[in-house]
Amino acid sequence: METILKSDKKEVKVSFDAPFMIIGEKINPTGRKKLAAALKEGDYNYVRNLATKQVEAGADVLDVNVGVPGIDEVAVLPEVAKLVSEQVDVPLCLDSANHEAIAAALAILPGKPLVNSVNGEEKSLEAVLPVVKDYGAAVIGLTMDDDGIPNDSETRVAIAEKILERAGKLGIPAEDIIIDPLVLTVGADSNAGLVTLQTIRSLKEQFGVNINLGASNVSFGLPDRHTINQSFLSLAMGLGATCAITDPIKLTSTIRATDLLMGRDQFGARYLTYWRANQPKESA
Amino acid sequence: METILKSDKKEVKVSFDAPFMIIGEKINPTGRKKLAAALKEGDYNYVRNLATKQVEAGADVLDVNVGVPGIDEVAVLPEVAKLVSEQVDVPLCLDSANHEAIAAALAILPGKPLVNSVNGEEKSLEAVLPVVKDYGAAVIGLTMDDDGIPNDSETRVAIAEKILERAGKLGIPAEDIIIDPLVLTVGADSNAGLVTLQTIRSLKEQFGVNINLGASNVSFGLPDRHTINQSFLSLAMGLGATCAITDPIKLTSTIRATDLLMGRDQFGARYLTYWRANQPKESA
Repeated sequence: METILKSDKKEVKVSFDAPFMIIGEKINPTGRKKLAAALKEGDYNYVRNLATKQVEAGADVLDVNVGVPGIDEVAVLPEVAKLVSEQVDVPLCLDSANHEAIAAALAILPGKPLVNSVNGEEKSLEAVLPVVKDYGAAVIGLTMDDDGIPNDSETRVAIAEKILERAGKLGIPAEDIIIDPLVLTVGADSNAGLVTLQTIRSLKEQFGVNINLGASNVSFGLPDRHTINQSFLSLAMGLGATCAITDPIKLTSTIRATDLLMGRDQFGARYLTYWRANQPKESA
Repeated sequence: METILKSDKKEVKVSFDAPFMIIGEKINPTGRKKLAAALKEGDYNYVRNLATKQVEAGADVLDVNVGVPGIDEVAVLPEVAKLVSEQVDVPLCLDSANHEAIAAALAILPGKPLVNSVNGEEKSLEAVLPVVKDYGAAVIGLTMDDDGIPNDSETRVAIAEKILERAGKLGIPAEDIIIDPLVLTVGADSNAGLVTLQTIRSLKEQFGVNINLGASNVSFGLPDRHTINQSFLSLAMGLGATCAITDPIKLTSTIRATDLLMGRDQFGARYLTYWRANQPKESA
C-alpha cells in the first residue's frame, strides 16, 4: 500500500518497498523551552532554522506543532505551517489536538499534508475524519481509544481496524491512513516493546497499511537511550514500520543503514550520500 | 527449539525466547597479527587475556580458532581450547576447517561444545557430522555447498534442509544444529542483506531452528561500519536470529537493548547490569 504526501512541488511516497520516511519531530514545543518562547514571541527565524536543519539532516516531512499554553492554535498553526512550507519544500505533518487548528492550516497549505492525529475515541473520529476527508489529506491513526492505550496487540489491532472502517465509510481510502501502534517505555514495562512489535507485525499482515512510530518514547527513563532508540527503529522497520516521527539529526544514519540492509538502497547510494554529507565518526 | 551448550560447570541455552547468545569472535588470528604471532610463539597469556575480556564484556560462548599458516592445528587447537576453558567457564565454539583438529579438541574438552562448522558440501558433511555425533557436540551449519554461496534465500534454505536431513540420518537432532544463513557485504551487493534476512525468516518459519550470524561481514568496505552492524543485528534478531559470532566489546549494548525491546529481559535487569558495568557514554 502506498501513501502519497505532497508539498507545493514535492511528492513523498510511503510504502514498505520504499525507503523509510523520516518525519522531523523538532518543531514541537513540548519539552523545548526555547521553541516555546520563540513561538510566544513570534520569533519565527528560530522555527525556520529548525526546519532547514532537519531537512538537511534527512527529514522527508516535518511535524509542525505549536501547542504552547496561551497560544491560539487556530491562528498560529496555519501561520507557522505556511512559513515552514515557504522555508523548505517538504510535505508537512500538522500536529494538534485541536481539529479546528488542523482545518485552518489545511485550508491554506498547498499539496497533501499529513494530519497528526486521529484515534479510536468516538469524539476524535467524529471531529478529525471529516476534516481529513474535506481537504483530501492523509492522517495518522493512533491505536488508543476511550479506554486508553491497550496493553495487548490484539486490542490495538482492533482499534486500527475501527479507524480504517470509520474512515472508509467517509470515503477516506486505507492508503491515506498511517497507523501508529504506539509505544510505551520499556523502562516502566519490559513487555512494552514486544507488544508494539507484535502490533506492527499484525498490522502489516492483516491490513498492509503504512505504519508510523513515535520512536523515542520507548527508551524514556533508561540510560544510553540512543542505543535503545536505534535498535527499536531497526527492529520495527524489519517487521513493517514505514515511517517515524523522530530526530533526523540523531537517527538518520541508523535509518539509512537499515534501508540498505533491507535492499531499499541500490548501490548504497543514499547511505553513502548521507555519510559524505554528515561524516559521522568511523567507529568500527 | 532449544540448543544446549555446556562447559565444565556452565550450561547455555539458545532459543528464540531466551536472551540472544553472544559468541565472542576475537580468538581467531585471521586479520589479527598480534594474535597470530602470539599463537606461533606459544604466548598464551595473550590468549587468556582475550578470553577474560570477552566474557567480561558479555560473551556467553567463545570461538577458538588457531588457523595460522605453519601451525599444526591437530596439536594446537586442543591445547588452546583447554587453556581457554580453564581461564573462563563458558562453552567453546571450536573453529577449524580441519575436522581432525576439531575431533582432537572435542576428545579432551568437558561439556558440550559447539563445532564451527559444517556446510552443504559433500566432503564437509562426510567429515564433520560423524565427529559431531561421536562426541555429542552441537554444530553450526553454513548455507553454502559445492556451488558456493547461493544468491537467493530459497537455495540457502534448501541447503539448510539438506544439512538437517543428513545430520538426522546420523542421529544428530535438529536441536544440535545452528544454521548460519551467511551474509555477504552490502558494499558489494546492495541486495545482500535482504537475501540473508529473507533466509532467516524462512528458516524460522519452516524449521524453527536456532540461527547464527557472522554479523560483521555485512558492512565490509563501507564507512561507519558500526551503525550498519548494529542495525543488522537488531533486524536479524527481530526476524529470528538467536546467536552471533561477533565482537562483544562493541556490540553487547545493542544486543542487550534489542533483547529488552523483544521482551526477553524482565525489568530490564540485564540491560541495566551491562550498562552499569560498562558505562557507555550517555548519548541521547
